[in-house]
Amino acid sequence: MGPEALAQVLRPLTSLAAPAELLVGLHKADDAAVYRVNDSQAVISTADFFPPVVDDPYAFGAIAAANAMSDVYAMGGQVMMAINLVAWPDNLESALLSEVLRGSADTVAQAGAVIAGGHTITDKEPKYGLAVTGMVHPEHILTKGGAKPGDLLILSKPLGTGLLTTAHKRDQVYPSDLDTAIQSMMQLNRKTSQALVREGAGVHAATDITGYGLLGHAWEMAVQSLVGMHIEYAGLPLLPNARHYAEQGHITGGAQRNEAYLTPHVRIDARLDDIDRALLWDPQTSGGLFAAIDPVAWPSLAALAPEVLFWCIGTVTEQKQDEAQVLLEVY
Amino acid sequence: MGPEALAQVLRPLTSLAAPAELLVGLHKADDAAVYRVNDSQAVISTADFFPPVVDDPYAFGAIAAANAMSDVYAMGGQVMMAINLVAWPDNLESALLSEVLRGSADTVAQAGAVIAGGHTITDKEPKYGLAVTGMVHPEHILTKGGAKPGDLLILSKPLGTGLLTTAHKRDQVYPSDLDTAIQSMMQLNRKTSQALVREGAGVHAATDITGYGLLGHAWEMAVQSLVGMHIEYAGLPLLPNARHYAEQGHITGGAQRNEAYLTPHVRIDARLDDIDRALLWDPQTSGGLFAAIDPVAWPSLAALAPEVLFWCIGTVTEQKQDEAQVLLEVY
Repeated sequence: MGPEALAQVLRPLTSLAAPAELLVGLHKADDAAVYRVNDSQAVISTADFFPPVVDDPYAFGAIAAANAMSDVYAMGGQVMMAINLVAWPDNLESALLSEVLRGSADTVAQAGAVIAGGHTITDKEPKYGLAVTGMVHPEHILTKGGAKPGDLLILSKPLGTGLLTTAHKRDQVYPSDLDTAIQSMMQLNRKTSQALVREGAGVHAATDITGYGLLGHAWEMAVQSLVGMHIEYAGLPLLPNARHYAEQGHITGGAQRNEAYLTPHVRIDARLDDIDRALLWDPQTSGGLFAAIDPVAWPSLAALAPEVLFWCIGTVTEQKQDEAQVLLEVY
Repeated sequence: MGPEALAQVLRPLTSLAAPAELLVGLHKADDAAVYRVNDSQAVISTADFFPPVVDDPYAFGAIAAANAMSDVYAMGGQVMMAINLVAWPDNLESALLSEVLRGSADTVAQAGAVIAGGHTITDKEPKYGLAVTGMVHPEHILTKGGAKPGDLLILSKPLGTGLLTTAHKRDQVYPSDLDTAIQSMMQLNRKTSQALVREGAGVHAATDITGYGLLGHAWEMAVQSLVGMHIEYAGLPLLPNARHYAEQGHITGGAQRNEAYLTPHVRIDARLDDIDRALLWDPQTSGGLFAAIDPVAWPSLAALAPEVLFWCIGTVTEQKQDEAQVLLEVY
């Protein structure tokens, strides 16, 4: 569902009475919900599921798990347990589902967590994902709000998974490119999140890049933080041949919906062409963490390479007084 | 997905290493997963979603919410928060989805909880449900294991929702019967659960009756508790005209799958005919709680009527030594 239609449907829910224990809910939407259960523990809840993005069922399960758990990492939390969400056709081999579940369980185990249950329904088209439960200290939650002018914007995974998986569906992807994309999507954002949490007050805001693409999620952070952003196109990490797949037209419907929704809020330099723009709007599956940090925190984060990678891709700016709306600018 | 196919696919997951904090997981499957976060608090996680069971979108949302939260109540817990799980066709009016969400949010509010987020995907067929997070004291968890010979078996809602909603789909249900079924499915198991929890050690085992029908869920409890059960057909509460809809052939595929899977484990008295049997196998949506209790606890539970209703429907028996498998008997 596109961001605009979804926002409209959810609007009535954002005014629901919520207990004080609900630290993060729909009234100020973030990557996941957070509920304080005592002074030092808050429970994180999130869920994500989707149709296969790659043919290999093991890789699909692993990617779906990394993607679902990423919301917990985007809040600075640890994963405790996860519940399988399965929609599966009666006429599709259950051995394939076993592989999906194995890929997911291995990935959840990598997160130090465990698959603890599930719900399965019969469906025409297979879908898989997880409902994930995590834990975070109530005073150390990373949210989308809090970015400050002067902050650096950092990103932890290359862009282009929407383009590559679309080319894959059309049988037009180079196997080595697909392998790289799969490795990237299977990778947990756990160490990335732990690195941000270790910086403490040096990290002002964080989210993860998924269906709304880099600009969609950057926009959400800018709105919640009441700031503008400058993003430097030349600094963006890209998956191998991502531009090639954009040139070949492997652009998803999601990218078009993202662009239609956000174009009024984004100023993209005229020197950037349609191919560049396709990458900016490309929806990501299991994308990286995106954070706004105090520049003093950058050297220690950059020093973690190559074990934990961050690319510095822009800066946070003042929200312009003469603009009616928060503005992202891309050069 | 049928119980047998599902069990096969999930089997490898049941041997996964699990931390000591996971009090209830796939290794001994119950209604929901439970993870201890400190000495006095354990987090419950569960998820459920399905296609519309009734035409009225508000009622569908309310039923889906009551059904999903029921797993928390079956564990003796309280609901903290819930996440919308939405699959919605692009060409289906979003005003209908708004009604589904409103029905669900009202029902979650009745539970003293809050809708705190969600995940939405585009799908050919609409589906809705919730991922629910609850809380329980780690020493007061109600599980399927623990039923003892001599216990009474009690049930808190009438049977027949599968038959009535199937007749509804075929436009062959009396409106007043449908209303009664909808009211029953919308009703939370919260007070029922609280009544069981108040009995403390007098309640030995509990679960809720959903897709596997009365006998399927009773069977799960019998297996986990290593006991047999006697169920008295004449004592079963039924929705109005439930037998009529069975006679008219409004029997779901789920009922047939339940029967095929469990027939070897169940002895049904020969005087009970196909119509009686259809009710025993009928899959329930948002069914009641089913518990095995010490007979001394019965008077105080029965005294809660009419505010909280329990029907006494049978007794727990010794697992017969001469039988290879746990046996349910229905008279």
